[in-house]
This record gives sequence, structure tokens and C-alpha cells, in this order.
Amino acid sequence: MGDFPKIISVDDHVIEPPNVWQDRLPAKCKDIGPRSVRAPMGEMTFVGGKFSYAPGTDGPQCDWWHYEDKQIPTTRLSAAVGFDRDDVKITAITYDEMRKGCWDPKARLEDMDVNWTEAQMCFPSFPRFCGQTFLEAKDRDLALLCVKAYNDWMVDEWCGDSNGRLIPLIIVPLWDATLAAEEIRRNADRGVRATCFSEIPPYLGLPSIHSGEWDPFFAACAETGVVVNMHIGSSSKMPSTSADAPPAVGSTLTFGNAMSSMVDFLMSGVLVKFPDLTLAYSEGQIGWIPYILERADKVWEENRGWNGVHGVIPEPPSTYYYRQIYGCFFDDEHGLTPSALEKCGPDNVMFETDYPHSDSTWPYSREVGQKLMGHLDDETVRKLVRGNAIRMLQLPFEP
Amino acid sequence: MGDFPKIISVDDHVIEPPNVWQDRLPAKCKDIGPRSVRAPMGEMTFVGGKFSYAPGTDGPQCDWWHYEDKQIPTTRLSAAVGFDRDDVKITAITYDEMRKGCWDPKARLEDMDVNWTEAQMCFPSFPRFCGQTFLEAKDRDLALLCVKAYNDWMVDEWCGDSNGRLIPLIIVPLWDATLAAEEIRRNADRGVRATCFSEIPPYLGLPSIHSGEWDPFFAACAETGVVVNMHIGSSSKMPSTSADAPPAVGSTLTFGNAMSSMVDFLMSGVLVKFPDLTLAYSEGQIGWIPYILERADKVWEENRGWNGVHGVIPEPPSTYYYRQIYGCFFDDEHGLTPSALEKCGPDNVMFETDYPHSDSTWPYSREVGQKLMGHLDDETVRKLVRGNAIRMLQLPFEP
Repeated sequence: MGDFPKIISVDDHVIEPPNVWQDRLPAKCKDIGPRSVRAPMGEMTFVGGKFSYAPGTDGPQCDWWHYEDKQIPTTRLSAAVGFDRDDVKITAITYDEMRKGCWDPKARLEDMDVNWTEAQMCFPSFPRFCGQTFLEAKDRDLALLCVKAYNDWMVDEWCGDSNGRLIPLIIVPLWDATLAAEEIRRNADRGVRATCFSEIPPYLGLPSIHSGEWDPFFAACAETGVVVNMHIGSSSKMPSTSADAPPAVGSTLTFGNAMSSMVDFLMSGVLVKFPDLTLAYSEGQIGWIPYILERADKVWEENRGWNGVHGVIPEPPSTYYYRQIYGCFFDDEHGLTPSALEKCGPDNVMFETDYPHSDSTWPYSREVGQKLMGHLDDETVRKLVRGNAIRMLQLPFEP
Repeated sequence: MGDFPKIISVDDHVIEPPNVWQDRLPAKCKDIGPRSVRAPMGEMTFVGGKFSYAPGTDGPQCDWWHYEDKQIPTTRLSAAVGFDRDDVKITAITYDEMRKGCWDPKARLEDMDVNWTEAQMCFPSFPRFCGQTFLEAKDRDLALLCVKAYNDWMVDEWCGDSNGRLIPLIIVPLWDATLAAEEIRRNADRGVRATCFSEIPPYLGLPSIHSGEWDPFFAACAETGVVVNMHIGSSSKMPSTSADAPPAVGSTLTFGNAMSSMVDFLMSGVLVKFPDLTLAYSEGQIGWIPYILERADKVWEENRGWNGVHGVIPEPPSTYYYRQIYGCFFDDEHGLTPSALEKCGPDNVMFETDYPHSDSTWPYSREVGQKLMGHLDDETVRKLVRGNAIRMLQLPFEP
């Protein structure tokens, strides 16, 4: 292998600075819109596969988001880079304690330089992975303003001065597919080519992708070339076995909704109806994809008497995967063995650095990538590390 | 590859004949105990990933089980062998319309001969994969009698005259771990070495494996060498994305609970506490196992600051998989590629024929096996096709 290519990472995260909404909301909304408040962390519990927080008068200082009547803490798991592995805990954190690159675009570019990263695309934090925070809000007019404020900040302020090195990724108003389509077109007009979405909308109380309700949104994405990026956790409900299972169970299984979502799309007819629609499974890893594609094709063929897709999906489901779906990995040895990669498709998978989360390989993403992909030829490595992302997102970089 | 070894299959099914409970229950219980009734199928719907049945006055004839106030149909999916692929539908079936091998042990042995099968182990049908039907019953005294009646029939009548070719597999009273332990010991005393269990007991409203409540049952299994066999679907709740997803989605994802269960066990400490306990994931396939083991080990190591298993699980989780867990496959090309099989462990996976279900490869299991395993050396093929099952179940056959 020659020099390791500069990384173009399709999954990283931004911790929104306090001004995102306060700078953009109308004056009368600022009091209930998202605002940053420093206060002690209080008590924290882990029940039913979820952490719950109750602000108190003690515990370490935390920078909370207040929004309507909700109070949401920032924890070290979301800003883990720079901490020793043993210190990456679910505990409070303030802006002052985290690396500046978490929330400041100039510092982020410096941290990308350190990590051999030419460009990256960041998911939201306070809005959650696809904007669930605004879906759950009481005041939907305000929520729509918040969605647009986030996207304006993302395009103008976060990515604005980065010379394309920070790739804009927007959110949409999940409660209305027509409004969502409008937001796609509004942003596509200014060059955005990526949106967040939920792996499994029914887990958020929304219509399924089978319902047809999302077609205006899918049509807008397909027509504008905006890629639908579904991050693990974007269904809110994480795979879990029981209320008393340790966090390690959920952490190992977090890719499960990405897997279910991929099968859902392959069997839905959505990819048949919208052949220009592109999906990406962010932080989903890839080692499970060969089994799923093989099984989906067998169910399509062997269970044709009762599977409900006979006559609906004209080609074996894997056909649509290779045409329209991308997988993303940060550290996946099995997925990169030659036989697995052949099935995952060397044109369908992309490397990511997951800065600044607990799974991040920063600042060693190049070394991790070299170890993971050292057995592959240069052309394949370039595809995985940057070429596929450049093609998928129509980026102005050399593949 | 030399001659393909005779198959010893660890996952098949029996359709219980009408006499199982009527022959064994006390006279006063026969009216509410399980009994076979022929009646039209009536209406059938598929909602929320599940088929529902409402007996009616029309539709094809069906052999129903009546038990307490429940009426449960027998469908062609459960007795699919011998039907053309296009005719394997979720429609009614009677004993007369199914292959006799579904319910008659002598006819079963003949169908095994046709399918190059020396021995096989059968899961229950009316009781469901781990006896959920009896867990859900109103009268638990009667339910316990039904569990014991099934096991007595399984040992004496189904397996009795087969010269060991039909391998007994029992069910336990799921509502009481102490009673379950007693039933394990009662059957171990007469040579039984396999029990059914649920992949994820909380999905049945039962305590999790983390609770300690199951320890008497696990202890009894470990002490007697009785293997805990968890069939896909033994959690009742199947992986599903939405109420309007086609059956193909659930059918592709059915292995998901096996995967979650395996992670649950690896992270629970149960395998540390009971080093002689053995688990098998029936019909779970294996192509997903390499990714899961790699990810579990990484979560154990990298997320040690917050995963809740630091100090509880002394070795990397995969250690316990290789020591105590078996995977079962019926048709899984990816899982048998050399790099995947090396991670699945050639001593940890077993072939199965799934007679008479929709996934069954009967009567071509030898041909399917030859195609799947043709690239492997003879010794490995013998392990997968019979040797591992013989060791796991302590069977009196030549490995």
C-alpha cells in the first residue's frame, strides 16, 4: 500500500455552540427556544437500556440545553475525544472541558489535520441524530423555526469558511413529509447534498416507509441528489434485550436498527419507485451486510409463496443495495476481509472517523485505517477512504 | 471432498399427533387440555408482523388445536415439505394433507433416509418453540401436566423406537425456574441431553438472564450436561420494523433475536458463572457471528469506562462463545467462507435440515450441504455435518 489517502469521513458529530438558536430565533421565541444553561449534573440512572437524567444541586458541572420544558445534559460520551479510554464515562461535561474542535469549526479543521482528514460530515447533537428533539416538541411552529435555524447555522457558520472541508448535513421537520420536502429543496438550492433521516420512522411514532406517506420527501431527495443518511440511534428506540442488561449489550447491538432499516428498504419497493434515491447507514458498520444480502435474496426467492414481495420487487433485493445503498465503518475487520468486502461491494462502503464520540478512532484514524485496509489494493483503499464519499456526495475533491 | 457424511441435524420439527395430551392427561383435564379439532380455516390477517386467525365457517379445512379457550390452526408453513415453493403459503392444513413424516416417527425415519440424515432433533409445534403456549395458559397445574406429557411423549413415543435416530428435546415450565430445574433433572436421569429455552425471556414477560432468577435452571442444565437450545422465534416477539412491512422483512430478520440473545449471554456473566453450560442457537444461521464477536470484544475493551461489564466479564466475550456456544445453519454461504468460518469456529457450528418447515432443504439437504461446504476439507465437513452435534449432545454415533 502506498501513502494512505487523505480521509473523507461521512460520519462525525458537532456539539452545537450556545448561539445556534439564540442568534436566529425571533426575539419572542428565545426564552423557550434552545438555550445553554450551566448547572450541576445531579443524579443519573441506567434503566431499560437508556440513561435518564434528573438535574440536581450536586454532581459535576454540566452544560445543559433547555428547550420548552425539557432539560438535556451534555455528557462525556458525546465529547469523548482526548480523554483516556478509562475516563470515557457517561458523566457531565461543559464546553470548557471538551476539545474546542467539538463545537468550533476552526478548531475542528485543526483536529482534522491532526487526523489525516481532508473533509467530514457532522451529525447534530442536541437535535439528536435526525432532529427527533424538534419532532417531540410541543410547539411545531417554533420547532420548524428551530430546524431551519439549525440548517442555516450548519451551512453558513459551521461549514461556511471551511473551503468545503466541512460538508453540510441538514435535518428536516419529521412531522410533515411535505414540509420536509420543501426543506430539502430549499437547501439543495444552496448546494446541500445530505440530509439526516430515521432508520425506522415507526419507532418515532411516524408512518413507515411502506405507507407512501414519505414519498414527497423521497421524491425531493431523489430529484435533488440529496443523500438520506441514517445514523445508528436515529430510531430513538435502541435494540435491547432487557431493562437490567448492562450498557455493553446495547452498545454491541446498536447497528441492529440499521440492519432492520436496510431490509425494510430492500423489501419496500421505495428503491424501485425512486431509482435515484441514495441511502447511507452511518456508523452502522458493515460486517453484517454480506449475511443480510444473502438472506434477503433467499427469502425473496425461496419464500415467494408468502413473503408479500413477489411481484412487488422485480429483482433480487441485493440489486437495489448495490445500486442505491452505502454502508459506513469505523473499525470492522471482518467486513474488510476479501470475501466479505466483495459482498459488501467495494463501491458501497465508506470509512468514517466518528469524531468526537466514544467510538471515534481520532487521532489515530489513519493508523486504524492502515491496519484495517493494509491488505487491500490502493485503488480499493482510495474508494473506501474517500472516492465513494466523493461520488455519493458530489464533492469537489479529487477521488 | 469424499462422500458427504450422513447428517446429524440439530434443528427439525415435529407436528404433534392428536393423541399426545389426550393419552396422558387425567380424565378430568382432557376437555380443556390440548385436543385436535377439524374445522374451516376462516379468516386470516397479517398485521404488525404477525399472522392472526379467526376461525370461521368457510375456507379450507384445518386441524386446529383447542386448549383452554384458545384455538390455534396448523398452517402449511409448518408442514411445508413436499409442496412446490410456489404453494408454500400460510394457509390451512390437515394431518391428511401433510407428509406423514411430519407427525409419524416411522414415516419421519423414512424421510430422513431419503435426505441422507442419520439423526435429528425436533422442536415442538403446538407448544411453540420453547413451550410458550403452556406459559400463557390460565391453569398452571394443568400446564405443568401438559409440559410433562409432552416430554414423556417425546422420549417414549417420538424417539422411543428410533434407535437413537430421533434425539429427545424437552420443554420446561417457563414460569418457575425451580420447577424447570426439576424437569431438567427428571429427564436427564433418562438420558435426555437437550432442552428448549427462550432467546430473550423478558419478551415473554419473564425475568432476564441478568436477574439471577434463572440460575437454578442454568445450574441444572450445566450439572447434567443438558444443552440449552434456543430456536429463532422462541421470544414470541419477532424483529419487526412496522405493522405494514411485508412478511419478507420479518423473515429476513428472524435471526435478530438469536443475535441479541448471544450478546446478552456473552455480556451477562452467566457463562462465567456456569462454565459447563452449553447454548445452541437453532435456525439462527451463522454469517452474522463474525461481526458480533468482533464488536462484542471491542465494546468490552474500548468502552470499558461505561459498558458495565468491566470487572464482571474477565476475558473478552468471544472467549465464552468458543467455549460454550454453538451456531446452527441450514443455508449460509457467507458464514462458510474460510475467513468467516474461522471466526465462527469450525468446532462451534452445525448443519441442520429444518424438516418440515418452509426453510427446510429436504429432500436435498445433502446436495445443499455439498454445495455449501464443497470447498472445505473432509475433517471440517464432518465436524459441521455431524461431529459437533455428536460432541455437544453426547450422542452414540461415530463422529
